[in-house]
Amino acid sequence: MSENKLPTLQDVQAAAERLRGVAIKTPLLHSVSLSEELSAQVFLKPENLQRVGAFKFRGAYNRLCRLTVGEKARGVVAFSSGNHAQGVALAAKILDIKATIVMPSDAPEMKRDNTLGYGAEIVEYDRETESREEITQAIADEKGSVMVTSFEDFDIITGQGTAGLEVIEQGQEIGVTFDQFYCPIGGGGLISGCATAIKGLSPDTEIYGIEPEGFDDVKRSLAMGSRQSNSQQAGSVCDALLSIAPGINTFPIMQKYLKSVLTVSDDETLFAVKYAWDKLKLVVEPGGAVALAALLAGRMDVRGKTICLLLSGGNVDAEIFQLAINSENL
Amino acid sequence: MSENKLPTLQDVQAAAERLRGVAIKTPLLHSVSLSEELSAQVFLKPENLQRVGAFKFRGAYNRLCRLTVGEKARGVVAFSSGNHAQGVALAAKILDIKATIVMPSDAPEMKRDNTLGYGAEIVEYDRETESREEITQAIADEKGSVMVTSFEDFDIITGQGTAGLEVIEQGQEIGVTFDQFYCPIGGGGLISGCATAIKGLSPDTEIYGIEPEGFDDVKRSLAMGSRQSNSQQAGSVCDALLSIAPGINTFPIMQKYLKSVLTVSDDETLFAVKYAWDKLKLVVEPGGAVALAALLAGRMDVRGKTICLLLSGGNVDAEIFQLAINSENL
Repeated sequence: MSENKLPTLQDVQAAAERLRGVAIKTPLLHSVSLSEELSAQVFLKPENLQRVGAFKFRGAYNRLCRLTVGEKARGVVAFSSGNHAQGVALAAKILDIKATIVMPSDAPEMKRDNTLGYGAEIVEYDRETESREEITQAIADEKGSVMVTSFEDFDIITGQGTAGLEVIEQGQEIGVTFDQFYCPIGGGGLISGCATAIKGLSPDTEIYGIEPEGFDDVKRSLAMGSRQSNSQQAGSVCDALLSIAPGINTFPIMQKYLKSVLTVSDDETLFAVKYAWDKLKLVVEPGGAVALAALLAGRMDVRGKTICLLLSGGNVDAEIFQLAINSENL
Repeated sequence: MSENKLPTLQDVQAAAERLRGVAIKTPLLHSVSLSEELSAQVFLKPENLQRVGAFKFRGAYNRLCRLTVGEKARGVVAFSSGNHAQGVALAAKILDIKATIVMPSDAPEMKRDNTLGYGAEIVEYDRETESREEITQAIADEKGSVMVTSFEDFDIITGQGTAGLEVIEQGQEIGVTFDQFYCPIGGGGLISGCATAIKGLSPDTEIYGIEPEGFDDVKRSLAMGSRQSNSQQAGSVCDALLSIAPGINTFPIMQKYLKSVLTVSDDETLFAVKYAWDKLKLVVEPGGAVALAALLAGRMDVRGKTICLLLSGGNVDAEIFQLAINSENL
């Protein structure tokens, strides 16, 4: 995507029309606990309450809606550690399209089970030794299937952006304007789409992205002015955020709109999962909790601000969840 | 309360005015998972997202607003296993009133800690051997404090009813009329207030209450036509619902409005807590999950119906929560 082909507010609004009545319009929640904790007016966009338990359904359904009749007949293939897998699988089921998902062998059990539950076929690979891109491409070549990437595609980005569009619209309904918006970053599809919608409707709202420590490819890429990779592809509790590098198509959007990128440790992230369980009564997976983690860890002084945090997903296995709720308070 | 003094829709609406901007207007959530599971249109009213993590804040704040200046100065005293305690403690803090809470020694740690955190003083008692009523009365006599009961008071009932009022109003906003409303029963304050509002605005909506097995005092009372007691006062995982008998004032309201009362086992309740964690991404305490438990256990055939389930609270210790999420699927 060249600069003049970046998605626009109107593109996100068109995606919202496609998703109407299919995706859940997740609520905008005012959190008194967090507002007191951070001395700010804090709102949450809980995409863990979205279909498949993560925002990913938005982009996947929007993308699959745009396939031709012939493409639909040949099915789709996608690689994903879990949330995109579930999003594609459910969207395909709704639209009566056959889906094959290439999934790492260490993907959370819940994400694998749900993907199967939506009727998709799963092909496993080893995250350390095999290339998911090559495996996926081979399947696409063999079957003539369309490859549905998790963050590079225009329609995926605009679909994810509907979450940000809703944030601003729901704020307007209650007379709230946001000073800042905080959002997890994996490949950047969610934050790119959300930023497009938010900046289109509320240009003064600052956009902050959050990455796990050791997987701060976007932070370094923005600093360098070019796409940088992570040296590792595993080893964070945030399985949902372990992309190798910023997307070719999401990077220019992030360059255009992001104010800054913050990083959080695994311990800070697990504490945020615990906080969400204890104080917010929401089930949030580690990767979905990094924005909350950054603010609880004091990465930004938000006193007096009106802010929105996006919680991007809630698909977490019992083992990791228990690790979180048994962790010591930081 | 004699029949002609039962609270009315207008009384609940007046309570809603007092709570405006203080209590959280919890969202009405459409659950696709549950709708598919039950072959119905299923909506949730998640009062676990209310301040203090339970609906109890509504009634407590409404009651405390109605105290005279002199009464406020002498403070309030209440007995509660936890959620009412937190509701009274926070409402008292907001209104700058001193609160003393009489709490069983086996109350969940989280509820005790939060009650202390809101600045209330806690007096412990033994649920098996001591009378909370006597202890509370003695404190009220000594200090001249107003005793804030958890379900007998008119303003408590109408305050809790604001949750039901919101259900109908939020349904109207999206063009939904409910065939049935499912709600947990302890002493009956919540369901009495909610039924008052719901029947006032939507007379055809059927109201169902849910009690833990072995604590089915309301079910038996309705069958007998007079208030019956439970033989035990402990021994259910639903610490929030262990009242001794229906309220003197809530019983006639429940007689007037309830279609039927269902009961659920501890195992069914813990499975509902797990389901809420796994599929709904909500943290619900056992007592708050009994309506969900009844429907998941197939107590009612709701196929084709449009229904709302109230999840009444989310204050659960890590130990019980882990017991739930590790339980076998039923």
